[in-house]
Amino acid sequence: MHAPESVIMTNMCMIRDRQGNVVLQERHGDWPGLAFPGGHVENGESLTDAVIREIREETGLTIAHPRLCGVKNWFRRSGERYMVLLYRADEFTGALTSSEEGAVRWAPLDKLPVLPLAPGMSDMLRVFLEEDISEMYWSRDAKDAAFK
Amino acid sequence: MHAPESVIMTNMCMIRDRQGNVVLQERHGDWPGLAFPGGHVENGESLTDAVIREIREETGLTIAHPRLCGVKNWFRRSGERYMVLLYRADEFTGALTSSEEGAVRWAPLDKLPVLPLAPGMSDMLRVFLEEDISEMYWSRDAKDAAFK
Repeated sequence: MHAPESVIMTNMCMIRDRQGNVVLQERHGDWPGLAFPGGHVENGESLTDAVIREIREETGLTIAHPRLCGVKNWFRRSGERYMVLLYRADEFTGALTSSEEGAVRWAPLDKLPVLPLAPGMSDMLRVFLEEDISEMYWSRDAKDAAFK
Repeated sequence: MHAPESVIMTNMCMIRDRQGNVVLQERHGDWPGLAFPGGHVENGESLTDAVIREIREETGLTIAHPRLCGVKNWFRRSGERYMVLLYRADEFTGALTSSEEGAVRWAPLDKLPVLPLAPGMSDMLRVFLEEDISEMYWSRDAKDAAFK
């Protein structure tokens, strides 16, 4: 009845400085455009360690106390639940450095709507920013996301 | 490299009224004692729908806008990651009603330390209440939890 689910776990983090700027990464490949950095949770890894590690690898920044704001999740045709754990981090050290995953740069959060964001990224902002929303969810075969 | 993980997904919710009382459930079975209510996420179900459904089934209350505060997670010997999504809900309707899962009642949050809580429940309170903590994690074979 409560069989385990097959889950692909990833993360994404909105890193924000005191001036209201956030780190954007220019992504290529199957989800192109500007997005927040992030990556995969390794098998057995702590969820928090995973986001700290990915952000360090992709931005050169070491974040502290990333706060879980919500989860984006949908189902692959092959059946797995694909889960993106969404975090916000206002504390960090280090200098912004791009990686092979894509160039990174600071941009004012309020300018994001006019930038060439990755598909669905502007919807995801709601989960990062609105306290009443903690999930963006597509049921199997749903075209549109539900915000919950 | 990024193979899916086998995950058992559950939830638990701290329901709090305006007087600072929370709903406690008297659990029996393999994790006995007082704890917050919750249950399993069904295969394919929205994470938020799951916690709303479980709370309705176990307490008679319909919560609104449950907020994700963090995740408790560890590994079973059989390999699966066991995940408890921890929520806080300050909005609800309905009347408190016990279920077969255990009697439910209101108790002042600040009295919890002197009550016969389920094992580890007082540690879990940190994730529910401290903004800087979003995970309680045991690596494989670890005896003690790390708060992250």
